[in-house]
Amino acid sequence: MDDPVLLTGAGGRVGQAILRHIGTDYDWRLLDREPLSDDKIPEGVADEAVYAADITDREAVEEAVSGVRAVIHLAGDPRPEAPWNSVLQNNIDGTHTVLEAAAEAGVEKFAFASSNHAVGNYETADRTPDLYRSHDDFRLDGTELPRPSNLYGVSKATGEILTRYYHDEYGISVVNVRIGNLTEGHPPVDYERGQAMWLSYRDCAHLFARCIEADYEFETVYGISNNDRKYYSIDRAKEVLGFDPIDNSAEFEDEGGDEE
Amino acid sequence: MDDPVLLTGAGGRVGQAILRHIGTDYDWRLLDREPLSDDKIPEGVADEAVYAADITDREAVEEAVSGVRAVIHLAGDPRPEAPWNSVLQNNIDGTHTVLEAAAEAGVEKFAFASSNHAVGNYETADRTPDLYRSHDDFRLDGTELPRPSNLYGVSKATGEILTRYYHDEYGISVVNVRIGNLTEGHPPVDYERGQAMWLSYRDCAHLFARCIEADYEFETVYGISNNDRKYYSIDRAKEVLGFDPIDNSAEFEDEGGDEE
Repeated sequence: MDDPVLLTGAGGRVGQAILRHIGTDYDWRLLDREPLSDDKIPEGVADEAVYAADITDREAVEEAVSGVRAVIHLAGDPRPEAPWNSVLQNNIDGTHTVLEAAAEAGVEKFAFASSNHAVGNYETADRTPDLYRSHDDFRLDGTELPRPSNLYGVSKATGEILTRYYHDEYGISVVNVRIGNLTEGHPPVDYERGQAMWLSYRDCAHLFARCIEADYEFETVYGISNNDRKYYSIDRAKEVLGFDPIDNSAEFEDEGGDEE
Repeated sequence: MDDPVLLTGAGGRVGQAILRHIGTDYDWRLLDREPLSDDKIPEGVADEAVYAADITDREAVEEAVSGVRAVIHLAGDPRPEAPWNSVLQNNIDGTHTVLEAAAEAGVEKFAFASSNHAVGNYETADRTPDLYRSHDDFRLDGTELPRPSNLYGVSKATGEILTRYYHDEYGISVVNVRIGNLTEGHPPVDYERGQAMWLSYRDCAHLFARCIEADYEFETVYGISNNDRKYYSIDRAKEVLGFDPIDNSAEFEDEGGDEE
């Protein structure tokens, strides 16, 4: 098997979506601030490959990253309403620590979980709600400047600047994935914005598998399923990463069910 | 006289360039981490308008910003080689504190001292040294994504994301000024890069005066003199701010003198 892949934030929602679908395809190292319960660890992952550590703990991160070929960096405070001090420490300082350790260890590829909140303020009053509907052809494509809609989004946009710096200085291949609305089973109900940026669990896992497999230099892409409604282009993810999503929120539009 | 203008980092090089040329044109509040010696304070500034405080000290910043119409925010660690912990605290966290206080106080205009280091890695091996010469027509114009060349540059690019957020959320008018190479009297000698991004003291002061006077929403401009050599466009600063620089590094090219 190839060298291992480090997944930070392995116990979170994105981490679990990934592990549920491609958990046996790679030699994983799993890092999370909280000890991972057995149901969150795929079969075949040895105890020594599971780290309970904060990503601002440089020594622990260095150990976890040693000898890996790729890092999928998800760890951080995931709350859109997170206060400044938390995102400053967990998302900005934490991402710096992981990048610094990865660059020094000679890791080849780095996939960073950025967020739709890094560009949330493109959703201006004059663009919404049309933006969320399939007839509208406004698209963000990853080349635009960030316009965060909260301090969590500021921290994610800052992570993208840090990855740019580490790519330019150390040659580490980087893909920033601005993740949409990840929900299990079906898209959010009665929430057009969430339907337009829906990312199914299996499309999410496939996208990060492509981040491990594909060849790229520095990319910023959107992580959403193949939705009819959308204002994020997935052309670049398809072209460079070979992303080929199979779900589409339109297939669920007439169904009922509770919002997650 | 109009409401006061707060200048943070008043004792630093940019602050002193500003005060030397337009020190009697405004009702200043001056803030610096170090107590300012008398020679650094323009005539007519009262003792009560001079604050010795760190910009991460929220209470002191709130007091300094109360009732001002504009903020020129220069404070921070100015060293391109500054370590991460210093720029994280002084430049990123500090800028957040000043913006948060300014937004809450209802300040109308905010000029942020960004830096050429926020885009330093556009100076790739295949572009240099041609980039620094007057025949070359490559231009950065402020619409490009940051490509920092050091962690100081990362912190300045992050400041630009923070100003974007506070503009979008609070309506505060913002101009990010990516300052070039500020030296007194004459441009750097035997340093083509510095000549291409030279900003004279009087052009610097004039540019920040325009940031106080002009009407704008959200702008990112370059702060350099009217140099023949250049790879930063000043068109936007001219058009939106009415910037009209009078110096040009080409006028000094055959002179000797020591580099500053």
